[in-house]
Amino acid sequence: MSNILDSIQKPNDIRNIPPEYYPQLAQEIRDFLIEHISRTGGHLASNLGAVELTMALHLFLHFPEDKLVWDVGHQSYTHKILTGRKDQFDTLRQYGGLSGFPKRKESPCDAFDTGHSSTSISAGLGLVKARDLEERNNTVVSVIGDGALTGGMALEAINNASKLNTNFIIVLNDNGMSISPNVGGFSMYLNDIRTSDSYLHLRDKIYYSMNDNLPKMVKGIQRAKNSLKQLMIPGMMFEDMGITYLGPVDGHNIGAMLKVFQDARRINKTVLVHVITTKGKGYGPAEKHPSRFHGTGPFDIATGLPKASKSKAAWTDIFSTVMIKLATRDPKIVAITAAMEEGVGLKRFHNIFPDRFFDVGIAEQHAVTFAAGLAVGGLTPVVCIYSSFLQRAYDQIIHDVCIQNLHVIFAVDRAGLVGADGETHQGIFDVSYLCAIPNMTVMAPKNKWELSDMMKFADAGTGPIAIRYPRGAACDTMQEYREPITQGKAEVLVREKDILLLALGSMVETAMQVRDDLKKRGLSVSVVNARFAKPIDTGILDSFVRNHSLIVTMEENVRTGGFGERVLEYLNRAGYLDSTHTVLNIAIPDQFVPHGGVPVLRQVLGIDRDGIREAVIRAWAAHHPMPCPAQQTKQPGELVDIPDTEVDE
Amino acid sequence: MSNILDSIQKPNDIRNIPPEYYPQLAQEIRDFLIEHISRTGGHLASNLGAVELTMALHLFLHFPEDKLVWDVGHQSYTHKILTGRKDQFDTLRQYGGLSGFPKRKESPCDAFDTGHSSTSISAGLGLVKARDLEERNNTVVSVIGDGALTGGMALEAINNASKLNTNFIIVLNDNGMSISPNVGGFSMYLNDIRTSDSYLHLRDKIYYSMNDNLPKMVKGIQRAKNSLKQLMIPGMMFEDMGITYLGPVDGHNIGAMLKVFQDARRINKTVLVHVITTKGKGYGPAEKHPSRFHGTGPFDIATGLPKASKSKAAWTDIFSTVMIKLATRDPKIVAITAAMEEGVGLKRFHNIFPDRFFDVGIAEQHAVTFAAGLAVGGLTPVVCIYSSFLQRAYDQIIHDVCIQNLHVIFAVDRAGLVGADGETHQGIFDVSYLCAIPNMTVMAPKNKWELSDMMKFADAGTGPIAIRYPRGAACDTMQEYREPITQGKAEVLVREKDILLLALGSMVETAMQVRDDLKKRGLSVSVVNARFAKPIDTGILDSFVRNHSLIVTMEENVRTGGFGERVLEYLNRAGYLDSTHTVLNIAIPDQFVPHGGVPVLRQVLGIDRDGIREAVIRAWAAHHPMPCPAQQTKQPGELVDIPDTEVDE
Repeated sequence: MSNILDSIQKPNDIRNIPPEYYPQLAQEIRDFLIEHISRTGGHLASNLGAVELTMALHLFLHFPEDKLVWDVGHQSYTHKILTGRKDQFDTLRQYGGLSGFPKRKESPCDAFDTGHSSTSISAGLGLVKARDLEERNNTVVSVIGDGALTGGMALEAINNASKLNTNFIIVLNDNGMSISPNVGGFSMYLNDIRTSDSYLHLRDKIYYSMNDNLPKMVKGIQRAKNSLKQLMIPGMMFEDMGITYLGPVDGHNIGAMLKVFQDARRINKTVLVHVITTKGKGYGPAEKHPSRFHGTGPFDIATGLPKASKSKAAWTDIFSTVMIKLATRDPKIVAITAAMEEGVGLKRFHNIFPDRFFDVGIAEQHAVTFAAGLAVGGLTPVVCIYSSFLQRAYDQIIHDVCIQNLHVIFAVDRAGLVGADGETHQGIFDVSYLCAIPNMTVMAPKNKWELSDMMKFADAGTGPIAIRYPRGAACDTMQEYREPITQGKAEVLVREKDILLLALGSMVETAMQVRDDLKKRGLSVSVVNARFAKPIDTGILDSFVRNHSLIVTMEENVRTGGFGERVLEYLNRAGYLDSTHTVLNIAIPDQFVPHGGVPVLRQVLGIDRDGIREAVIRAWAAHHPMPCPAQQTKQPGELVDIPDTEVDE
Repeated sequence: MSNILDSIQKPNDIRNIPPEYYPQLAQEIRDFLIEHISRTGGHLASNLGAVELTMALHLFLHFPEDKLVWDVGHQSYTHKILTGRKDQFDTLRQYGGLSGFPKRKESPCDAFDTGHSSTSISAGLGLVKARDLEERNNTVVSVIGDGALTGGMALEAINNASKLNTNFIIVLNDNGMSISPNVGGFSMYLNDIRTSDSYLHLRDKIYYSMNDNLPKMVKGIQRAKNSLKQLMIPGMMFEDMGITYLGPVDGHNIGAMLKVFQDARRINKTVLVHVITTKGKGYGPAEKHPSRFHGTGPFDIATGLPKASKSKAAWTDIFSTVMIKLATRDPKIVAITAAMEEGVGLKRFHNIFPDRFFDVGIAEQHAVTFAAGLAVGGLTPVVCIYSSFLQRAYDQIIHDVCIQNLHVIFAVDRAGLVGADGETHQGIFDVSYLCAIPNMTVMAPKNKWELSDMMKFADAGTGPIAIRYPRGAACDTMQEYREPITQGKAEVLVREKDILLLALGSMVETAMQVRDDLKKRGLSVSVVNARFAKPIDTGILDSFVRNHSLIVTMEENVRTGGFGERVLEYLNRAGYLDSTHTVLNIAIPDQFVPHGGVPVLRQVLGIDRDGIREAVIRAWAAHHPMPCPAQQTKQPGELVDIPDTEVDE
């Protein structure tokens, strides 16, 4: 066959492919992935590593009856290709296009939506219990990476899976990596298995003779006496937990995996199949730099180099530089991250201060309470976690940091709209969930200099302090505004009258642009950089309400519980809300925000320059005569129509 | 000595007691605990189980230099007794009195505040790393129960502890119980060790000869070859993770424990000392019913029976009854709890529907995502978790339930002020953190009949639905108001004019009382039961603003992001806030609320009947002539002075 991939148009079509063509199909899938992701960007290394594994699972399972739960889900591209979504890959991660993660809305073959790590065993167990109670007999498989296995909830789930007296298959896709190389005891343990003689021996057998010795051997070992088993079987830790362990098996050998899967299905217990894969498999640059090709922008296939040279420094780069300066000056500064050393910009810090850098693995809860311990011990920990992942540590922030009012700095990266990663990764709740906690200070910088100033301020401060900043290029305008930072004090950028634009963080630049537009319409507009979402600067409000009748708050966070509501609540409590004052809260409406470019998303949500300008004009015109008529656009903060992720073909 | 306990007045005094008096001291401590807790209530069984363990740790460590972190902390009473707080036990868990948990504010010997489970290893690791970086050489010990070990973050911490090349001692206080008996693979594993020949053999040796064989034996085993070790040593799972395992050792034998602790300190690694204790040890009724004596009210020492016979049904009892009715009618209903089967009232449900009941252990994260899997599988899961513990699953609620808009019902017990357990257990954030999530419905019943109606409504509904209800006796007034429940619709209890009291859940009864008071002052007052914190009933607001100029919201939740701000935000957005309308938000101010009786706490916070009445009168009088002058009291929602937990002696 010249092109096998084209013959796969719908779920289960792979079952018609003769086994001798599997290697060719795998190669075509790899070529397809590299070719497409080099243009659209996306998760490459994890998908290249899971090609044969996904093929084996698709030969083993029948869709959509059988349920396949991908942990995190960034490795599900081959699954999407094999379930009829190949032709949509040009729209990957674009607004209205194919999601980069499993989505039940997209296909009945996607059993469970994922995005964050370590959820698949819990979800799979739920599907198993529902299957049994509803008396169905489909197979349920959860595929989890070894990185995700360090996340506490995966271990909670394994603890529960041990009780099962029905079939549930966990595939441990072990490539020794999360986004960064893995850390900790589990990793050591799995590494011992990977490099042990027994695995090397077994692997050779499978590779070179394709015999059916493995299941027999495994069964033989299973039958052996417990004490003997401990000497012979890898994965005894799982057996100790009441889970049947099969493996390790070569994750690039489809025949070998199929045999083990079929064997696993015969066992009425939770079975863990340990599959060894290579992240980035089949593409040199990705095998060599799996972290860089974890999530990538468009790149040149021949060289592996990014296509667009980065023109501006990212917020993360600024943070990275400031951290090193701070730590050089203040020996008490230590940095903690959860399996995203490169993502949060701590690679250089790690190199310079190896003793003061802690990558705890995918373990946000531990990261925060560990930081609390460091703070009680007299250090100043900086916890660097993306906004959406910090949700994992909500109780620890309340219970371990804020109740004790500990001086822990939270560097909340990827706060606001993140774009292509979509619903699960948008950092749009942190202002709300952090501001509700007593003792917490919440800040957001308008530009790169202010991020630096805020870090220094936070280092010199007390109590828990969160600084939220967006994904992507750091704002490098407004350098002329650099008032020293004072606790709870905003910064006045433009002082006029009538309309006050009170903007938080990423919205300050937009506020300045909106002001330019409004000036052209003949309106008088002040702009204030809030700096603090908590505590808000009530003094500036007391002062500005005197000659501003329209107060507009602007933030890249959901409206509920956000910065704007803090301002509204104060204005109400202080008795300023009367017929001469109007408050307009510009924020993200009460809905999940799908994947797509950030500018498109802002536009759709009505929180871009144009949307905000028109909303302000409408609010002003409702009470005042206008020089020019307002245009009709959507109301910011109102629910908007967002298309399903399914795309037209 | 006639009374040894009296000779212990300050930290480290126990070191002056000759070893032959240890049994007598243990007995005196037990008598003290039973005598005091029988009067004040508190955690009994866990404390009785940890008497000798705590004595051994106090003989081993030097306070406050050495750091002892108690997991959960409800077992720290003996520690408090031995560190000079014996005379404060009459004030235990009362407002301004001794906390039932470790508090750094209370004593320098309390190394880290706790209350929720599974945090101690993370915190301990932080203290260890800080010690090393700051070049101190104190000893750090974390004491964790086997129940807490099923919590994901404890496992995240163990994974990280494995890397340590410095001393850190984890004491595993293994009594086979959390609040309920433990579940899952870890529990099986530990049970295997407990009941194995090797432990029984070792225990006998320790008990009867007090020889020093144990450390030698352990060391011998440590030196053995890896493969051999697996045959000989219990706790190989921990060794596999890179943690040195010592034990098991009898947790009621002080000499044996001391020897192992001293041995453990010599090892420059993380050492886990496995200590076997009996929950409730030394008091028959508590040994027999450890769950009932986990947290207890005052009881009769002779019989173990509660002193106050329960006069009214608790909210939990109502929930318990409704769940059985619902499940009988609807075969899709299943129940999930996280190690609190009795606490949330699911014991009967478990007995009647064993296949539809899931206690996942202390594992809130897994509980929620497991429920999401059950919902995708076609069932209707009811997740029953206390408000403050549900914080642990915040990301799972957002990421696994709400993004997929799954029909999962959250029974949020202990919502609002909980009283004696204090800061860590107050359920005062759930309205805020749940309302910020798209797709979520949040409800709260005014009385016991409405809880029943809401459960039925939720069962028949779609999407994620949370029902929050308080700890303690269910409200059984207002039976005459029982309008059928409709999505997003409030219930009008009294329709007059001028003042609208719009109350959520537990505050409805208070609103009716406040209305009685205000009527006596000659004011006209309507009362509306909000029922929904999200979505709020905008229709009723549209209607009531016409002839109500003061709108008062009332809730037992922090103000930030709470129900009142939802109402305020709508009134502002709809353009109702002008000089003819005032909004008063009655809520918990932005501060942590300490332990104490709920009535006292409500009074201190200004959210009791008197406080609210006076606040309403002030708000009304600011704009209208009053029949009677307002009294001067504190402003609800303003920060209040709360005394430190230290008490005068």
